[in-house]
Amino acid sequence: MSQSFGARLAESMVQHGPLCLGIDPHTELLQAWGLTNDPAGLATFSKTIVEAAAETTGVAALKPQVALYERFGSAGFSVLEETLELARQANIVTIADAKRGDIGSTMAGYAQAWLADGSSLAADAVTLSAYLGYESLRPAIDLALANNRGVFVLALTSNPEGATVQHAAENGKSVAKRIVDAASQDNAGVGQLGSVGLVVGATVTGAAKALNIDLARANAPILAPGYGSQGAQAAEIREGFGPAWGNVLVNSSRAILRQGPQIPALHAAIEHSRKDLDVK
Amino acid sequence: MSQSFGARLAESMVQHGPLCLGIDPHTELLQAWGLTNDPAGLATFSKTIVEAAAETTGVAALKPQVALYERFGSAGFSVLEETLELARQANIVTIADAKRGDIGSTMAGYAQAWLADGSSLAADAVTLSAYLGYESLRPAIDLALANNRGVFVLALTSNPEGATVQHAAENGKSVAKRIVDAASQDNAGVGQLGSVGLVVGATVTGAAKALNIDLARANAPILAPGYGSQGAQAAEIREGFGPAWGNVLVNSSRAILRQGPQIPALHAAIEHSRKDLDVK
Repeated sequence: MSQSFGARLAESMVQHGPLCLGIDPHTELLQAWGLTNDPAGLATFSKTIVEAAAETTGVAALKPQVALYERFGSAGFSVLEETLELARQANIVTIADAKRGDIGSTMAGYAQAWLADGSSLAADAVTLSAYLGYESLRPAIDLALANNRGVFVLALTSNPEGATVQHAAENGKSVAKRIVDAASQDNAGVGQLGSVGLVVGATVTGAAKALNIDLARANAPILAPGYGSQGAQAAEIREGFGPAWGNVLVNSSRAILRQGPQIPALHAAIEHSRKDLDVK
Repeated sequence: MSQSFGARLAESMVQHGPLCLGIDPHTELLQAWGLTNDPAGLATFSKTIVEAAAETTGVAALKPQVALYERFGSAGFSVLEETLELARQANIVTIADAKRGDIGSTMAGYAQAWLADGSSLAADAVTLSAYLGYESLRPAIDLALANNRGVFVLALTSNPEGATVQHAAENGKSVAKRIVDAASQDNAGVGQLGSVGLVVGATVTGAAKALNIDLARANAPILAPGYGSQGAQAAEIREGFGPAWGNVLVNSSRAILRQGPQIPALHAAIEHSRKDLDVK
């Protein structure tokens, strides 16, 4: 890959719009698709979604949920590897939603898994979690940038208990703001969209403002879960993110996947979301 | 398993002392042992360590470092599964050092992987990371307790950047203290040692006191990395943890593993640490 992750993602978003399709092989979804809740069912489910995304316009990125493969151990990881390979062949941007985080050479191990050229699990980007501090993620950030890959660091999430960590402050600066500011620094001076992304819930843009967080200045791709079923509406999300909206990748999983397993029905659901999100 | 994780761990510590041996298949260690840096090397390395632990007194628990298996994708996870199975057969307590953390049904997926009966990756306990808040870990805590397994939640770590998150406070209460207090609640009323453990660096007991954290009251097994090479000395750790010392599982990895690959040399290193940690 000769372009940075940020540049590739930005191009994909110009072509497809802001929709990120989550590949979430929940037990209930597998059942609803008439599939077995095992690695074989996982494989059919994942392959169908990659095919559906490849054959249409509207999916800027695919985001496999690693936990739901990991529950089947190495056999589940095997399916995840096949899924990432199919997406690679179809030239679709992938974000492995793994929320990894550690320090030093252990963090480097996770970076190797998800961000190294030639790794069977290599994705275009991986999500990271920084209970150990933003700088503890450095081995992954460095490897991502060296390999034209990216990361998305959890910043501000919508689950009610998230605030107990993310709103906590030191010297008047919240944990979430500290992370956004650190990502801003890593993305500074990049002419186009940076490659150090952030995860910010679609429904917590008000909290972001209250914490004095400037998302637009971060020059970061922003992965926003919480759109659609039980979540926020497109116009609210657009308004909430304000000037950062152009960098927002809106995730949807179940609202679309529930329409499967037939590919035309998945296409219709993707098209519906694409149009819905096309708010200026 | 008919006993709680806390009870089994406490028994193991009575028999073996407080040493937890980390299985850290770093590239440099594999090379030092004359092994290839691939799944085959990983398998020999892991098997040797489980055998060494099984044939001696002094190892209360084994802690495989998941990232260092994950870097080889599904093939690495396959080796981790074999390693956990060998430890199970040898009746050694295992702690999968995975530092997982997510919310809702995704967190339940991780719980399923590491804490469900019959899962190929099932360990006696798993380490968790709570950037999303302690309560977000509930599906794993619940499954652990239901299955007589355990968790170790990252509380206070020794890496310099850890403080930016862990010392941050809300209403005068630090993130780390909030986590310790929540674990205390989950361990309350358990006659013996609780099954909701904490990770607290061996060198940050001073910071714990400064943050008004009462580790003894938590009734929690405490996993303490940072002993030995470049870390804290046994007497310092004993003194630092004070009345909580009886619940502390002291991790050592490289200082012992560097003495391999010969099992007698590993035994000598384990025995040396066991004696060193036998401070009253």
